[in-house]
Amino acid sequence: MSVAAPALDRGRALIESSLREAVSRLDDDTRLMASYHLGWCERDGREVVAPSGKGVRPSMVLMAGEALGAAPEDLVAGAVAVELVHNFSLIHDDLMDRDSERHHRPTVWSVWGDPMAVLVGDALLSLAHEVLDGSPSPSAASAARALDRATRELIHGQVLDVAFERRSDVTLSECLEMAAGKTGALLGVSAELGAILAGAPASSTRALRRYGQEVGLAFQLIDDLLGIWGWPERTGKPVFSDLRSRKKTMPVVWAVQNGGAPGQELATWLAESDEPGELALRRAADLVDRAGGRGWAQREAQVRVEVALATLEGLGLHPTHREQLCRLARFVVERDT
Amino acid sequence: MSVAAPALDRGRALIESSLREAVSRLDDDTRLMASYHLGWCERDGREVVAPSGKGVRPSMVLMAGEALGAAPEDLVAGAVAVELVHNFSLIHDDLMDRDSERHHRPTVWSVWGDPMAVLVGDALLSLAHEVLDGSPSPSAASAARALDRATRELIHGQVLDVAFERRSDVTLSECLEMAAGKTGALLGVSAELGAILAGAPASSTRALRRYGQEVGLAFQLIDDLLGIWGWPERTGKPVFSDLRSRKKTMPVVWAVQNGGAPGQELATWLAESDEPGELALRRAADLVDRAGGRGWAQREAQVRVEVALATLEGLGLHPTHREQLCRLARFVVERDT
Repeated sequence: MSVAAPALDRGRALIESSLREAVSRLDDDTRLMASYHLGWCERDGREVVAPSGKGVRPSMVLMAGEALGAAPEDLVAGAVAVELVHNFSLIHDDLMDRDSERHHRPTVWSVWGDPMAVLVGDALLSLAHEVLDGSPSPSAASAARALDRATRELIHGQVLDVAFERRSDVTLSECLEMAAGKTGALLGVSAELGAILAGAPASSTRALRRYGQEVGLAFQLIDDLLGIWGWPERTGKPVFSDLRSRKKTMPVVWAVQNGGAPGQELATWLAESDEPGELALRRAADLVDRAGGRGWAQREAQVRVEVALATLEGLGLHPTHREQLCRLARFVVERDT
Repeated sequence: MSVAAPALDRGRALIESSLREAVSRLDDDTRLMASYHLGWCERDGREVVAPSGKGVRPSMVLMAGEALGAAPEDLVAGAVAVELVHNFSLIHDDLMDRDSERHHRPTVWSVWGDPMAVLVGDALLSLAHEVLDGSPSPSAASAARALDRATRELIHGQVLDVAFERRSDVTLSECLEMAAGKTGALLGVSAELGAILAGAPASSTRALRRYGQEVGLAFQLIDDLLGIWGWPERTGKPVFSDLRSRKKTMPVVWAVQNGGAPGQELATWLAESDEPGELALRRAADLVDRAGGRGWAQREAQVRVEVALATLEGLGLHPTHREQLCRLARFVVERDT
C-alpha cells in the first residue's frame, strides 16, 4: 500500500491550490459546506485539517497524463474536475444512503439538512464543468465531452444501485454493470482525461480509459469486501455495514448465484426484512465466505488489476511512468481503507 | 398574454426533437423518469401529452439569437441546454420543497422516491453540459462558460432560499439577491446564450443578459404574487400556498419592511409556527395587500420589464425581432399561470 502513498500525496498537493481556488468561487454558504465536506474546516468555518479522500482520481489524471508526455500544469484542471465530480457524488450518495458519517465526521446532510446536501452536490458538479471549461488547453473541449459521458455513466450506476434495493432478483452481470458505472466510469475518465489533455492519440486514450475502468472495478470489489469485513477504525464504516442494509454487493450476489447450499441460505436471509442482530450478521458474512463470494471477489479484483496493467502494454510508456500506474492499480486492491 | 404564445409554441417545437434526442441518451430508468417529468409519458412509460412548462427559456435563447443574426439551428443546443438546466432545478426544487404536484401531476420524488429525484436532477444537469459541449458551434466553449456561471448563481439563489427558511430577519435586498439567482440567472443566460451563439460582440451579449435577468426578476415577482393569490386551476398551486409555509417572498418581505401597522401584524404572524387555518391565511394575504406588498410587487414587475426593454435600445435590432423580445418580456408579467 505504502508504495503508492507518496504519489497520492504528490497528486493531492499538486491540485490543492487549484481545488481551493475553484471552491472559493462559490457563494459563502455553499463554500462553507463544500470546504467542510472536503475536510478543510469545521462546520463553523474554523480551519482544520480533517481526514479526507485519498485523491486516487486526481492522481490518476496526473500519472496518466505525465506518462503520455504532458506537464503537470496541463493536467491540473482535469484532476480538479474529476475530484469535484467525485465529491459531488459522495455528497449525494451520503444523502441517498442516509450515511451519517464519512471519515469519522458527520456528513453534509446530517449537519445542514437534506436540501442543502442536494444543493452543495449540485454546486460541485457544476463547478467541475466550470473548471474544465475555463482551461486554456486545446484539448479542453474534448476533455469536457469525456467527463460528460462519464458523469452520465456514473449517475446510471447510482440509479441501478437505488433500483436494486427494491429487487430481489439482481444478477451478477447487473451488479457488474452498476459497479462499472458507479466506480468504473469516473476512474476510467480520470486516466482518459490525462491522455486527452496530453494530446495523446485515440488509441492511447481508449487504452487509458480501459485501464481506469478496470482499476475502478477492482476498487469496487475491494470496497464491497470492506463493506462486509472492513476495519471500522480505518474505513470509518462499521463491520457488516453493507449486510446490515442487505445490500446486493458483488460478493453477495456471486454467493447467491454460485454458492450452493450456503448461497441458498444467504438468499433466504436477504429476502427477510427485519432488522438483523449481530449474530445474524456474523452468520450472513460467514455464508458469503463459505459460498465462495469472498474468495471470488478477491480473485476477481486481482484479475481486473492484471487486465488494467495489460492495457498499458504496447503504449510505449517510459518504464518509470508505467511502474507508477501499475503501483496505483495495485494500491487499490491492497488498500485496507 | 396570447401575443407571445405562438412564439413560445414555435420555440418548443424547434427544440422538441433535439430535447428528445438528448434525453434518449440516458439509460432506461433515468430516461423514463425524465420523460415523465417532461410530460411525455406516464410513470409506466405509456406515451401521453401531459401539461409541461411554457418553454420561456428556450424561446428566449432562440429570440435573442435570431435578433442578433443567428439561424435557429445554431441556437438549438443552447436552447436545449437551458431547458435541461431549468428542469434539473425543478426536480430538485420539488424535492427540497416537498411539493407533491407540478402541472397537476405527482412530482418525480413523490412517484419514485427521494434518491431517484436527486439522480434524475443530476442527470439532467449533466446532460445540459453534454448537449452544449457536443455543439459544433465555434462559440460553444464560450456558451458553456456562461452556462456554468449562471448555474452557480442559480444554485446560490436556491441555497439562500433554504437558508431564509430558518431566519426571521430576511431583508428585501437579500430577497432580491435570491430571486436574481433563482430566476434571474437562468433567464439571463438564456438571452446571453442566444447572443453568444450568434457571435455577437461582448456589449450585445451583456445587454441581452441584463434583459434576461430583468425579465427573470419580473417573472419571480409575478410568481410570488401567484403563490399568494394565484388561480389553482391554472397554476396547479393552491391559493395561499406560499403563505401556508410562511415563505419569505418579495411582496411579503416588502410588506414587513415598509407596511406600517399591517406589516407589523404580518411580521408577528410570520414568526408563529403553528399550522395556519384558512381564516389566518386569508387574513395574512389581506395584510400583505393592505401593507402595500401586492401593489409594490406589481409595480416592481412592470419596472423590471421596462428596464429589460430599455437594455435592448441601441443594439440596432430589427424591429420585428425587438418586438418579439418585448412581447416575451411583457408576457411574463401578464401571465396568469
